[in-house]
Amino acid sequence: MNNKIKVGIVGYGNLGRGVVSAIKQNEDIALEAVFTRREGLEIEGIKTVNIAKIADYKDIIDVMILCGGSATDLPEQGPMILEMFNTVDSFDTHANIPDYFSEMDSIGKTSGKLGLISVGWDPGLFSIMRLMGETILPEGKDYTFWGKGVSQGHSDAIRRIEGVKNAIQYTVPKEEALEKVRNGGNPELAVREKHSRLCYVVLEEGASKEKIEKEIKEMPNYFSDYDTEVNFISEEELKENHVGMPHGGFVIRTGLTGVGNREKIEFSLNLDSNPEFTSSVLVAYARGVYKMAKEGKTGAITVFDMPLGYLSNKSPEQLRKELL
Amino acid sequence: MNNKIKVGIVGYGNLGRGVVSAIKQNEDIALEAVFTRREGLEIEGIKTVNIAKIADYKDIIDVMILCGGSATDLPEQGPMILEMFNTVDSFDTHANIPDYFSEMDSIGKTSGKLGLISVGWDPGLFSIMRLMGETILPEGKDYTFWGKGVSQGHSDAIRRIEGVKNAIQYTVPKEEALEKVRNGGNPELAVREKHSRLCYVVLEEGASKEKIEKEIKEMPNYFSDYDTEVNFISEEELKENHVGMPHGGFVIRTGLTGVGNREKIEFSLNLDSNPEFTSSVLVAYARGVYKMAKEGKTGAITVFDMPLGYLSNKSPEQLRKELL
Repeated sequence: MNNKIKVGIVGYGNLGRGVVSAIKQNEDIALEAVFTRREGLEIEGIKTVNIAKIADYKDIIDVMILCGGSATDLPEQGPMILEMFNTVDSFDTHANIPDYFSEMDSIGKTSGKLGLISVGWDPGLFSIMRLMGETILPEGKDYTFWGKGVSQGHSDAIRRIEGVKNAIQYTVPKEEALEKVRNGGNPELAVREKHSRLCYVVLEEGASKEKIEKEIKEMPNYFSDYDTEVNFISEEELKENHVGMPHGGFVIRTGLTGVGNREKIEFSLNLDSNPEFTSSVLVAYARGVYKMAKEGKTGAITVFDMPLGYLSNKSPEQLRKELL
Repeated sequence: MNNKIKVGIVGYGNLGRGVVSAIKQNEDIALEAVFTRREGLEIEGIKTVNIAKIADYKDIIDVMILCGGSATDLPEQGPMILEMFNTVDSFDTHANIPDYFSEMDSIGKTSGKLGLISVGWDPGLFSIMRLMGETILPEGKDYTFWGKGVSQGHSDAIRRIEGVKNAIQYTVPKEEALEKVRNGGNPELAVREKHSRLCYVVLEEGASKEKIEKEIKEMPNYFSDYDTEVNFISEEELKENHVGMPHGGFVIRTGLTGVGNREKIEFSLNLDSNPEFTSSVLVAYARGVYKMAKEGKTGAITVFDMPLGYLSNKSPEQLRKELL
């Protein structure tokens, strides 16, 4: 334990549970404690600590993995925790990333700690692919498709409709659009052409299928711009077939080199568990933060700033020999 | 021109020509000269210089892109040129990478220059994917498939057979094996199961098809371990349909998270021109070498050591805003 990287988890939802699992797969990393606002949370074999006492761990924990949400948790916890610890988070409100980065950067530079923000698969691995794509094939275009996967926001929007007891919504990339993109030629694709929306809805007794289907399909922002399929199922069926959190997606860059040669770079993820995969990315990057912080780096960074070798427990010699 | 990164090209084969094209797509990079051993080489609009005079450009060129072969050119030119310039090369003799790295590292540290070795798509982008795969999904396995693409080594091996006038060989990944890998379960795949070999052969007059087909199929190391298909065609057909240099391949990592959730990361390239794409990678990384060298980094590095943001001409702010 003494030579291991000591990690803390802040927040114990799906992501926090995923981090617990991911740490078990990395023998050089040890989980010190889970920090939570919840009173009386007990997790077998793991120390839980009220977040109010987080400062007590200042000299014990090397990196805090922040597993709260981007809407309210991270904007508050990120800056507060970076005052005392190196951090990794998955802040994913794209429009607010520049502001969040600035704040974290200035705090980290003052506190002497390092905060890696917006890691996961998008933002994160997909961002890396977009960067590779446009730097290697400048005369080209990239496309991101998401899914097939559960969208919590869209599922929640359906659940708020009167007469709906429960619902789950899958975002589905359209195979036809994927093929168009893969064939090059940089097609312009409308929102409706890229993704469709697949809904499974459990009705309250006596609710009208027709009315609710219409209400879903016409919901602005969420559904009206998409081809939407609505299926009504029983609560049992929902519990049996739709409790997983699969997700994934594609980043495809097509471009030209020389006198018209077509080149294609495609990256895709196919995930049984979106939160567990995201957690696995967080843990690999926590190792990198530990190393960069040890070298004296402070402030905020993103996936664009860390050499990929830092993700690994292997020595540079070993990486060159085994993976290059 | 004055604010541009000034680049030189050493060697003017397929790769060197590709670098000329790639530089044209990057407005912050300017080609200063092509260095060659060939007497009297003229290239429209480009200065050509005998390699013996390379030292004259010591204070002019920021990064030299080495476009020679790994067998004899790079082991000699890499160390010689790194004495005077920052370098990028695509050294791809896997077994000799550790030694080549050591030599380049010690020379660069003495000369105060930076040499990025073994860049391209494999080694290079594929190496990055293997690293991502094993660090993010430690309980998993990765598979690399190459093709469909031309293998020069195998084409040459066929051409050396008596009675063969010309030949081209494609390495083809087996769709069945790809599917097995994508479905998870980490299959053990024999050499023969992963790739097949597709040959187009032009015979000398009077040569025996049967004899040559047998000789190809039984050739040790090159063909005997593979399912090999041999097609006899005319010289005209070869010139018409088989002059391109397509290539590509796949790196697939499958792994488990949590209590048995299956996750898959897949990266693939589909290239009309193998040398032009490789050149595009070299040019993007030449920009990164320029930046890291400016910050004082010396010695040898690989793709594992460079933060990906260095590949881009955009500012870190712009990258965070646009690509994250």
